[in-house]
This record gives sequence, C-alpha cells and structure tokens, in this order.
Amino acid sequence: MDIIELKQITHCNHLNLFSLRYKDRINNEKSWVFASRLKKPCVSGNKITIPDAVVIVPFHRKKNRLVIIREFRVPLGGYQYGFPAGLVDRNENIEKAGKRELKEETGLDLVKVIKKSPAVYSSSGMTDETISLLYVECAGEPSLKWNEASEDIEVIFISREKAGQLLEEPGTKFDVKSWIILSHFADHGKI
Amino acid sequence: MDIIELKQITHCNHLNLFSLRYKDRINNEKSWVFASRLKKPCVSGNKITIPDAVVIVPFHRKKNRLVIIREFRVPLGGYQYGFPAGLVDRNENIEKAGKRELKEETGLDLVKVIKKSPAVYSSSGMTDETISLLYVECAGEPSLKWNEASEDIEVIFISREKAGQLLEEPGTKFDVKSWIILSHFADHGKI
Repeated sequence: MDIIELKQITHCNHLNLFSLRYKDRINNEKSWVFASRLKKPCVSGNKITIPDAVVIVPFHRKKNRLVIIREFRVPLGGYQYGFPAGLVDRNENIEKAGKRELKEETGLDLVKVIKKSPAVYSSSGMTDETISLLYVECAGEPSLKWNEASEDIEVIFISREKAGQLLEEPGTKFDVKSWIILSHFADHGKI
Repeated sequence: MDIIELKQITHCNHLNLFSLRYKDRINNEKSWVFASRLKKPCVSGNKITIPDAVVIVPFHRKKNRLVIIREFRVPLGGYQYGFPAGLVDRNENIEKAGKRELKEETGLDLVKVIKKSPAVYSSSGMTDETISLLYVECAGEPSLKWNEASEDIEVIFISREKAGQLLEEPGTKFDVKSWIILSHFADHGKI
C-alpha cells in the first residue's frame, strides 16, 4: 500500500481525527479516517517503543484475588469494569506509570512485575493508540484518597468463582481486555 | 457525574469526534473528547446489544492450530498481527458477521461457536467503540480470493510453541486482543 497524504482534521488537545489518502493493492485511491493521540501519527511503519497508556493487571497475592475496578467512563456515560489504567507521562517508563496509576486509582502498591507486553494496538481499524499491559503483584489495602476529582472508582477483589458470576451478569459493561482476562481466569484459574 | 452537553466536532462517514461537557464529583465543569462510530453516541448509559464490530478467535481443530492474520493497517502504516475482524453490517447478528468476515479474510469456514462475549469496549478513555469476541472452531483451507482490494492479509496457523516465539520477536506489532490471547495460549496451552 502506498501512502499519498496525511491530513489533520481536528486540532484538539489530547485526541484528533486524521485522514489518510493511500493507494490499495490494485492502485485505487482510497481514504481512511482514524483517531490518534499523537501530534504526528506514526504512519511510516516505524517502531513505537513508548505506548500512549499503561493498563495494569494487578494480582493481590495476600488476598489471592485479581483486582479490577468499576469506573465511570465519560464516553460511555456509565460505569464499566476494567483494569486500572492511564496515560504514560513524559519522562516515565511503563513500570513507573503503572506504579503511579495503580496507586492513584486503587491505593494499592505495585510489588513485582510479572509480565509486560510491548506497545500493542487498541483497535487498529480506528486508531493508532497503543497500550502496554503490565501484569503485577500488588499489596496493601484499597483507598480512593489518591483519586482525582474526575475519577469515580470502586476497587474490587475478585476470585475465580466471582469472575465467572460477573461475566454472566446481563447488561454489565466491560473493557475488552478485562473481559478476556476475566474469562481466562474464570475458565482456567490463570491470568 | 452529570452530563451537560454533547457536541459533534466532525462530520465524517464512519468515525467522528465528539466533545462532552460534564460535571465531575466535586461539581467542576469538565470536557472530554472521544471518537465514535455511532451517529448518536450512547451517552445515556443505556445498554448496547449490537456491537460495532466482531473479532473472531478461530481454532482449526483438524490442524490443531490457532488462526491469526498478518494484515496491513492503514492507521499504523504497517503490518499488524491480529484476528480476523470487521464491522457488523445492518441486519446481521454477531454470528453471521463473524462467519462472513472469517470467510472474506481467511477463506476458512466457521463450524461451531465456542464462546461469545457481549459488546465490550475497545478503549473507553477515547472511544465508545464496542466489539464482540467470537471464539469459533473453523475448517477448510485458507484462501485470499474473497479479500477486498483494500485488504492485504496473510493467514497464519499457529501452535502453542510458535505463539511463544512470535511474542518474543522484537518490533512485531500486535493487536491487544491477539497479544493477550496468544500470550495465554503460549503460557497455558488454552485460548
């Protein structure tokens, strides 16, 4: 595929729409609209090393429970189950951002990193947004005192059995990553 | 949180930016920009039953392999590993859309649905996009003859061992759903 032109459609602070003109396999000119958090979207195929955001998958060893949050999400106008997550600040690495966001959103302390994904794509048909998944062991008691005013969060410790029950509750909203991981946990007892 | 006003910023065909003004927990007025595929984004907290898209997780029983694709993604300007996926057409249910997209993108036939997620959110900080995951058994031989001209796809049959190797390849781009499922497959032999 040959890229002809990238055009920025909007000029918002944190998220913008871009339109890309390109030639498809049989040389027809096409265009594709997508959303990006980047000032200059990466359309040159180069490698992304720092993701836009970190998503923390916390396991509380002492309580023997997976940790999820129930959080108000503005674009949904409602509450969603998911993992603690947030944008990676400038000069942060993934571990530092993960430790900070876990504390801010749940009050829990990151004790040990179990597994880390590279920067992976959220939904590449519509955005170049990337995240890293940080599977961690955590400790401490939950607290919401580090929440920002824009955050409305409940911290939930979840067993394998409870994960199965939650997944069956009709009308419940899940982030896709938490649905997949809770589903594995419910089916196989592993995260 | 109280929603004050929803404003549509762009007027593109398939994806648009919206700005939502709302009051946070301590009554400060805030705004949030997000992307949506919907004509009227669901900001009323109501239930979404038909997702924007379906993502198929195909297991080929006869070959005893998970099926992934390596696909050119316009917003990335490069190739990404992921699962076959596509928008759900009007008057389609998830199974029908899944069967159609699997055939179009890989040439394989959907034989049996193993597991299905509800409509879950791709990345709810930036979009209300929803997808359903459809875990299926598939059969047949791969073929690209049903690909559209805008599609540039390679079909890959992957063993547990190969999944582990692929995840370790530096610089490889993954969709987040495929990364989680391949990682689980590599670690535990289950999808």
